[in-house]
Amino acid sequence: MSKLRIALAQLNTTVGDIEGNQGRIAEAILRAKAWFADLVIVPELALTGYPPEDLLLKPQFIDANERALKRLLPLTQGIVAIVGYVQQQRDGSLYNAAAVLAGGRRLATYHKRCLPNYGVFDEKRYFTPGSEVLLLQVGKIPVGVTICEDLWELQPARDLAKAGAQLIVNLSASPYHAGKLALRQKLFSKRAKENGVCVAFCNLIGGQDELVFDGASLVVDASGSIVGQARQFAEDLLVVDLELASKSLPQRPALPALAKQGILKPVEEIYEALSLGLKDYVRKNGFSSVVLGLSGGVDSALTATIAVDALGSSRVKALVMPSRFSSRETQQDARKLAETLGIESWDVSIESLFVSYLKTLRRFFRSMPANTTEQNIQARIRGNLLMALSNKFGWLVLTTGNKSETATGYTTLYGDMAGGLALIKDVPKTLVYQLARYRNRRRNKPVIPQSILQRAPTAELALGQKDQDTLPPYEMLDRILQAYVEENRSLKQIIQGQRVPVEVAQGVVKMVDRSEYKRRQAPPGIKITPRAFGRDRRMPITNQYQEC
Amino acid sequence: MSKLRIALAQLNTTVGDIEGNQGRIAEAILRAKAWFADLVIVPELALTGYPPEDLLLKPQFIDANERALKRLLPLTQGIVAIVGYVQQQRDGSLYNAAAVLAGGRRLATYHKRCLPNYGVFDEKRYFTPGSEVLLLQVGKIPVGVTICEDLWELQPARDLAKAGAQLIVNLSASPYHAGKLALRQKLFSKRAKENGVCVAFCNLIGGQDELVFDGASLVVDASGSIVGQARQFAEDLLVVDLELASKSLPQRPALPALAKQGILKPVEEIYEALSLGLKDYVRKNGFSSVVLGLSGGVDSALTATIAVDALGSSRVKALVMPSRFSSRETQQDARKLAETLGIESWDVSIESLFVSYLKTLRRFFRSMPANTTEQNIQARIRGNLLMALSNKFGWLVLTTGNKSETATGYTTLYGDMAGGLALIKDVPKTLVYQLARYRNRRRNKPVIPQSILQRAPTAELALGQKDQDTLPPYEMLDRILQAYVEENRSLKQIIQGQRVPVEVAQGVVKMVDRSEYKRRQAPPGIKITPRAFGRDRRMPITNQYQEC
Repeated sequence: MSKLRIALAQLNTTVGDIEGNQGRIAEAILRAKAWFADLVIVPELALTGYPPEDLLLKPQFIDANERALKRLLPLTQGIVAIVGYVQQQRDGSLYNAAAVLAGGRRLATYHKRCLPNYGVFDEKRYFTPGSEVLLLQVGKIPVGVTICEDLWELQPARDLAKAGAQLIVNLSASPYHAGKLALRQKLFSKRAKENGVCVAFCNLIGGQDELVFDGASLVVDASGSIVGQARQFAEDLLVVDLELASKSLPQRPALPALAKQGILKPVEEIYEALSLGLKDYVRKNGFSSVVLGLSGGVDSALTATIAVDALGSSRVKALVMPSRFSSRETQQDARKLAETLGIESWDVSIESLFVSYLKTLRRFFRSMPANTTEQNIQARIRGNLLMALSNKFGWLVLTTGNKSETATGYTTLYGDMAGGLALIKDVPKTLVYQLARYRNRRRNKPVIPQSILQRAPTAELALGQKDQDTLPPYEMLDRILQAYVEENRSLKQIIQGQRVPVEVAQGVVKMVDRSEYKRRQAPPGIKITPRAFGRDRRMPITNQYQEC
Repeated sequence: MSKLRIALAQLNTTVGDIEGNQGRIAEAILRAKAWFADLVIVPELALTGYPPEDLLLKPQFIDANERALKRLLPLTQGIVAIVGYVQQQRDGSLYNAAAVLAGGRRLATYHKRCLPNYGVFDEKRYFTPGSEVLLLQVGKIPVGVTICEDLWELQPARDLAKAGAQLIVNLSASPYHAGKLALRQKLFSKRAKENGVCVAFCNLIGGQDELVFDGASLVVDASGSIVGQARQFAEDLLVVDLELASKSLPQRPALPALAKQGILKPVEEIYEALSLGLKDYVRKNGFSSVVLGLSGGVDSALTATIAVDALGSSRVKALVMPSRFSSRETQQDARKLAETLGIESWDVSIESLFVSYLKTLRRFFRSMPANTTEQNIQARIRGNLLMALSNKFGWLVLTTGNKSETATGYTTLYGDMAGGLALIKDVPKTLVYQLARYRNRRRNKPVIPQSILQRAPTAELALGQKDQDTLPPYEMLDRILQAYVEENRSLKQIIQGQRVPVEVAQGVVKMVDRSEYKRRQAPPGIKITPRAFGRDRRMPITNQYQEC
């Protein structure tokens, strides 16, 4: 038995920033060498960022990534580095690949065998699957190479174990959703045990449009025990000594004992995912500040709070935009929140603009009763004001709609849906409350006024309006939505399984089906559930299928 | 030698409308029987509509499609019908399938072997590829079955010819782009000749969100000659007698000589595609009327004209919404066009609303110079007014932006981009002019005023503004965009190949790359080029790749 020292470089790469990514990988290799590691691995497609989508169809993009790989070679004296990149074969086919670099040379290339093409993944659009296993000798230890999905299926690990691997490394870009970490721990533990090998999983971290990669890279020994875990939602270099059967390796300083990595609690974890998703969207797209409308409701309160935590209060701006339907209480709450958060905020009444619109449209509407049209006009005035500030000062507009609203279409296109990022678009309303309460408990320093958490939800677009005039109670609505959207259950199953009234379930399903056209024009939002709207759930707009 | 009579039922199915589609197929089978056809084929996935996208992940949707298939059985006495549907195997895997129905029984099922997963296609997300050929005896003639992509690749036709097929039928859902018909004619002619078989290609027709299926089903004999072609952009039943080596078949009335099907000229064809795309989006989504803003420019003029041709003048409404920057000439042109088209239109000045916004925002903007912010405000007021009418009266808002604007981001999010369908989103500006001129030549009855075609393009959002202050001349811009977007050329290739100034090409590429966030929130538009924005070109928003 002797030790193999491995380093997992959990990096925050940026899609398209090939030079920048190369720099991050280079630094990781040097740090791993400083730790006397034998082997360093980085995430899947670390050189291009993940997912590069149709950038992969540009030959010049592929060339640039190959050139960047070559520039890493001189750094690999005295270490083995396994680097994720795109390899193009002579016939033009592309592979999601891992290059093994050592002693200044490229020793081998592995091609990902299992290409995910479900959920948010489209890898078969771009890549040819690999057909061979890759087993390396690192020191005297046989190490098998895999990429992400390869370890979620059975065959690749089996093939490698059969070929004699004692350690299987896995370069990953595994996106976050609530509960994913537990899934991974269970899976990798199982893979290790059933094949009698150690597993080292190196994950990406950072936000990319709707996806957040949560890191939490893992090292599991052959008994299935977790022997090392990297941080969640932050860059990290996890260095672990593994005891493996082999000839002895050179002496080097012992590693300090690994600090037991705490795991975030479920609600805390979601909060951090949203925070990182926002932070990276802002940073990687080069925005200085964000702006949002504060209504005095819980959705905008939570959005503003996360924004302050992610960006700092000086980079968050707010408008309070009361109308004739806004109560004194909600306005006060909005102002109080801005004060507690220490953000710049302005009061801008929309009344005169609303009157202007009604006057302009009077000849069309005449004596027709007011309906959602007049409500939408108010929401769109607010959208326009926020966009005007965005255009003038370069601020990113955050929208504040939650998943329950996005699902049912209880939202105004070009109104409260107007903005660059819909931060809590994948967060059901009941979870919005949980997140707000969690944040208020943190360090015993409540930021969101209690009255916001206690008031019955209202859009305040008509007199005495309450969300529950239109929607079923949120607790029931969210159960139906989870079953219909996330678990893909049929109406029949929902009625039986969730014990909800038939007409309520029917009504919700209809609202979801009919709002596809709105969602198609929604800004991106951060995925935190197993099935978000967007890439994850691709429904036609023109669609006459009805279960009801 | 004896005759085989085949009927190609070129149907307009609707995604999700399984019962309705079943009815259309049933009617086609009965009509084919009335023609004494031996064999009738329908388009790919005729029962579900194409593409059904994530509806395919609903088990109850698959069940409903299987039940509908069974209901067709009783109609197949005395005829062989080949029907596109989704088949689920016991292990849960799905196949893009063709059922062979005859004599009231299901005789066989074919599974599509080649699954397209590029461009607008995502078939590997849903389906398992088939692995077997299917050869039927119809009368005494061996007939091979294929589905769409199968015939675009080499192997399936070869396998069938080797097995003895004399006729290969192809159930298709082949979406339109300019030039596709010629591609298909060439391809099927080649496939027939190289394998010494007849080919019968039955295409879908109709609009589905961004796609238009153009029909033009084809029958090609073994020498590669086209012996029958169905209509473009309309439902049709093409019945053809083929002379094939076999035992003799029963006597029946001779078919009338096939009328030689004329083929639409290139610009005419694109006009018809846009018209059908709009008509079907409106019909299949249940709208009564459409509404749009007329600016006195060529984009809105063309959009209104197509709408009137597709829907009739009584179903098209228009607003003329002048601002302080609108010239008398453009307003007059807009009104004249509405009059010529015979559509209801109203003049609504946006001046007082514009003043209201400027007043509300004065404390923020102070003495800052006016820029695109003030321009966007005007566009968004117009968007809001159109949406208010849409909400009040249930009209679909048509946006009028062309592909050159969509590509460069020369357009206002939530402003002129606000609406349900962006009819000419995939039409480059130079083609907009061609389409307008073509329409004016039709029946020698010009509808679009000459002055609209002659005036230098302007957004009229600032004093004396011209498009060419911001964009290169459209003729040059469209060449660059075709190379960059449709042909996926690198900046280097564009500079060399198109002989355009370096800074111009760089500027255009930058504009395209930076506008991805806008396009992500754009309404759907009708695809008419080989590479449209949307499903066809999937770029990350967060993207630091730069060729410049």
